[in-house]
Amino acid sequence: MSLIRNILNSRSNEDGNFFLNLKEILGYKPKSKSLYIKAFTHRSMNIKDNDGNAINYERLEFVGDAMLSAVIAAYLFEQVPHGDEGYLTKMRSKVVSREHLNELGKELNLIGLVKSKIPKSNFGNNIHGNLFEALVGAIYLDKGYKFCERFIYERVINPHVDIETLEGKVISYKSLLIEWCQKEKNTFDYEVYEDTGRDELKHFSVKLSINNKVVSKARATSKKKAEEKASKRAFFAFQKQIARRT
Amino acid sequence: MSLIRNILNSRSNEDGNFFLNLKEILGYKPKSKSLYIKAFTHRSMNIKDNDGNAINYERLEFVGDAMLSAVIAAYLFEQVPHGDEGYLTKMRSKVVSREHLNELGKELNLIGLVKSKIPKSNFGNNIHGNLFEALVGAIYLDKGYKFCERFIYERVINPHVDIETLEGKVISYKSLLIEWCQKEKNTFDYEVYEDTGRDELKHFSVKLSINNKVVSKARATSKKKAEEKASKRAFFAFQKQIARRT
Repeated sequence: MSLIRNILNSRSNEDGNFFLNLKEILGYKPKSKSLYIKAFTHRSMNIKDNDGNAINYERLEFVGDAMLSAVIAAYLFEQVPHGDEGYLTKMRSKVVSREHLNELGKELNLIGLVKSKIPKSNFGNNIHGNLFEALVGAIYLDKGYKFCERFIYERVINPHVDIETLEGKVISYKSLLIEWCQKEKNTFDYEVYEDTGRDELKHFSVKLSINNKVVSKARATSKKKAEEKASKRAFFAFQKQIARRT
Repeated sequence: MSLIRNILNSRSNEDGNFFLNLKEILGYKPKSKSLYIKAFTHRSMNIKDNDGNAINYERLEFVGDAMLSAVIAAYLFEQVPHGDEGYLTKMRSKVVSREHLNELGKELNLIGLVKSKIPKSNFGNNIHGNLFEALVGAIYLDKGYKFCERFIYERVINPHVDIETLEGKVISYKSLLIEWCQKEKNTFDYEVYEDTGRDELKHFSVKLSINNKVVSKARATSKKKAEEKASKRAFFAFQKQIARRT
């Protein structure tokens, strides 16, 4: 423990913002700080505890991966009542794909919190997803399943998981909407502007107008995502009028 | 729901013992009975809900498998501090191996609760493990993670998971003990007798004597298991004297 305390202290001195930034991401104050320090310690730091066990985020990934799988399994079970075991497994693997986890880690800018002896530019792309998994593992071990489940809902399921998209019924709401506008001879316009506001991360806002009337607005971390979000909102507003392609 | 109620009623009439037996296994009274009925309905029954979705245990296996993986991941993380991600993954796959899950299902005689149009003698061996997973899934959905975790500890981890054995440090406590007895010129005797008592399932008891003195007793569902359990108990009693083979 004394070793962990040393690392903790050196961390606070070097990076007073670590726990402040972390609290922003978590939405609560960590109980067991050492777990989160571990979740953001790269193996290149070569730190060991008093028993000689390595302190880095890799073992936490194992726990985080399992918790993501469990929470998403239960979610899909409820949301996709017609899907059999194999279908649910396939859907889950889309949600927790390497690519998607990397996006989630990037979105939270987790790499900004990591402590490493290797320059950050040398990391591969997978570090983002690995840190995200490790963080989920730390949350579970620190605060239990309910908290961890809530974090996964807030950060993964609510903003990113759309059953229709997962089922491959809708590839892109934007293309669906444009197709419909063209068919119906409606004019459309996506007005995009930077809208970072008080966020650290760059954000974009979109106003979607159909026939010169704003029908929906959205905000996200990329132009593409904001447009897709606005299109989806418009889609649900007009869905009785838009023929669904299944 | 009315359909589920019908199945529920027909089930109670045909097999009044279903919920009684279930309560014995669970150690609590189920809240959502329909989940457990689902967990013990084979696809051959060909039952569908009002939306046309199949009612059988297969989808619940997906949830149960995920919960087993999560609970055991967290357990191994704490218990095996020196193991890296890959090592922990390997250990978990031993605990939740098809073979082990089948044993767990058999131990609880879950097949005795299943409703099917196929004669039970025609089922393959995997049905035991599948039912066990489905039951774990039903417990999670009915009572939440904490309850499910407790069930997994009581039925899987406490009676069956031994870190030393999993790590391959000890293959069999019986062979270890016999080896030691022979080396030390101690006599030993495993006295085995049937001891089913009030259980439905056949049980065996073992008295292990070393130098004509009873040193440990154990009871299990097979002779082999009871002997191994008694050996393990003796092993821990004598462990200072027994040289450990790593």
